Amino acid sequence: MSLDERVRELAREVRPPDAHATEQARRRHLTLTKPPGSLGALEELGIRLSGIAGEVPPPVPENAAVVICAGDHGVVERGVSPWSKEVTAAMVKNFCSGGATANVLARTAGVRVSVLDVGVAVELERHPLLRTAKKRFGTNDISRGPAMSREEAAGAVISGAGIAEELIESGVDLLVTGDMGIANTTPAAALISAFTGLLPREVTGRGTGIDDEMLELKVRVIEEALRLHEPDPGDPLGTLAAVGGLEHAALVGLVLMGATYRVPVVLDGVVSNSAALVAYALAPGCTDYLIAGHLSIEPGARVVLEHLSLEPVLYLRMRLGEGTGGLLAVPIIKSAARVLGEVATFEEAGMG
Amino acid sequence: MSLDERVRELAREVRPPDAHATEQARRRHLTLTKPPGSLGALEELGIRLSGIAGEVPPPVPENAAVVICAGDHGVVERGVSPWSKEVTAAMVKNFCSGGATANVLARTAGVRVSVLDVGVAVELERHPLLRTAKKRFGTNDISRGPAMSREEAAGAVISGAGIAEELIESGVDLLVTGDMGIANTTPAAALISAFTGLLPREVTGRGTGIDDEMLELKVRVIEEALRLHEPDPGDPLGTLAAVGGLEHAALVGLVLMGATYRVPVVLDGVVSNSAALVAYALAPGCTDYLIAGHLSIEPGARVVLEHLSLEPVLYLRMRLGEGTGGLLAVPIIKSAARVLGEVATFEEAGMG
Repeated sequence: MSLDERVRELAREVRPPDAHATEQARRRHLTLTKPPGSLGALEELGIRLSGIAGEVPPPVPENAAVVICAGDHGVVERGVSPWSKEVTAAMVKNFCSGGATANVLARTAGVRVSVLDVGVAVELERHPLLRTAKKRFGTNDISRGPAMSREEAAGAVISGAGIAEELIESGVDLLVTGDMGIANTTPAAALISAFTGLLPREVTGRGTGIDDEMLELKVRVIEEALRLHEPDPGDPLGTLAAVGGLEHAALVGLVLMGATYRVPVVLDGVVSNSAALVAYALAPGCTDYLIAGHLSIEPGARVVLEHLSLEPVLYLRMRLGEGTGGLLAVPIIKSAARVLGEVATFEEAGMG
Repeated sequence: MSLDERVRELAREVRPPDAHATEQARRRHLTLTKPPGSLGALEELGIRLSGIAGEVPPPVPENAAVVICAGDHGVVERGVSPWSKEVTAAMVKNFCSGGATANVLARTAGVRVSVLDVGVAVELERHPLLRTAKKRFGTNDISRGPAMSREEAAGAVISGAGIAEELIESGVDLLVTGDMGIANTTPAAALISAFTGLLPREVTGRGTGIDDEMLELKVRVIEEALRLHEPDPGDPLGTLAAVGGLEHAALVGLVLMGATYRVPVVLDGVVSNSAALVAYALAPGCTDYLIAGHLSIEPGARVVLEHLSLEPVLYLRMRLGEGTGGLLAVPIIKSAARVLGEVATFEEAGMG
């Protein structure tokens, strides 16, 4: 089977959540000692977790893992980021030594960290936290040619799916999407424009905090890329190969494998949002397994969450990536599960 | 010294946070391995915690406590809530046996629970988690007379301050405001209207989820109460005694004592928001020590947070009270402190 076929097969394996458990959780919430509906989004989250797991109360996710997918981007040469591409490798090292923001938030929330190199531009030193599945040393400049071949894109999807499967088989019960790659909000915006039909100007943001002039250039570069490739949203892998990134592709695989195993996947910011859009194009049912950890300040993030009908858990005006916004949502997701399992019913409290 | 004078003395003890530490934290954030400002509200929270503690990095709050202040309300007789006042005592029992939502969220976040009875309408059984400082068996109906005497209001403030002081002296480093009292969103809305000058209609919500007809009645009852008392916002204790509640008063004391000890106080929903407004009228500087844990769906909540220039950590469409929205914010507050202490600097990461 070709890599392309393997991706399509993976997408076909996504099944709907358990409607019976969903309904049972909704009914259980009405029996708990609190006014009906008074926990708002927290109740809905608990109900969704029940449907995902097919159990009421849902299991409390105690073994979450964040997977930080890393890659480089040829488009950085166009000057769309103030950071040089060497920073990608330096940050991977920072993740491995536990010093990045994602590590700190993961420790605080009791989440394990894995880093997946699918396309960093240099060879990286081995490290226990780092898996290597490098498809190439960074993508090509999307404004001048396809980011990568279709086979490379499919291969990165399969690698992301592979690490997700391995983690789930080892007991991980909640996946958090993380990303690292200098300039990776440029392909993210290109993907979002391609799949939603909105103009690059409407979905492109300041990423790490670029100025007006660089933002103008970034929009123009994305416009050029889309004009050059005319990507067909009906061909998700082709679109990903043309204007996406290797870490975006790996995150598509992570989302699809999580959904296949009925393990909730927590999205982070605009890069993981754009990957979710690709996964949705391959398997619309996957969104039932997605939790939007936060709403990034990037304009494309809001567009994706609306497109996928996902309500973000947090809005803290963040724009860091790495999985940081997803990690901050983990304790709230645990709380949603525990409420369904531990709050006394009116009957138990003698208030029946 | 009269109780009234003791409250005013407490209010005078609130000092501003440490401007030097605030500035130092702001500068430290720029040295950490992430784009400047990319953590948005999380960065600002860490900077505020530094100013509050006078230390950079700020200490990580590992010993948080939620204080659920409980009282009953004479105005319940007007039919402003679908719940009978017996539910207040039943829920206090539920808190003591660990079965309420606040208990579950406190366990998840590692927060200890205390319940303070300042005015439940019946005698309550003793319990290790329950402190008794009952001023009276519920308030009077605010639409027919003052809720309580000025001395009772001041006494409840002092009791709230007392439990806060005791907890802080025993090592508590973060206070979360909790409340329980059937019909207590009615005095909350009356207080918010009195202190902001907005109409009752603009600040009154559905509380536990009342229908249109009951909401109309609730607004009318609050209008009647405000017409009857014409409370003077320049006299915060008088306003509290006229249209407030005993648990609202205790929360005023909790806020003031937290601010005095330079311990951050996490606000929950509209009841604690209304108490913060009274505390602000007594000691405007106290808001520097306040963290808005969440934005409740009650319209009065947004009004207060805007009035006090506080940005909520969470918005999950919750309206339960008990401290639930404040408790969910605790892991994020810890994360804000840990980021300042644990994220590697560019220099440490060899990226200088």
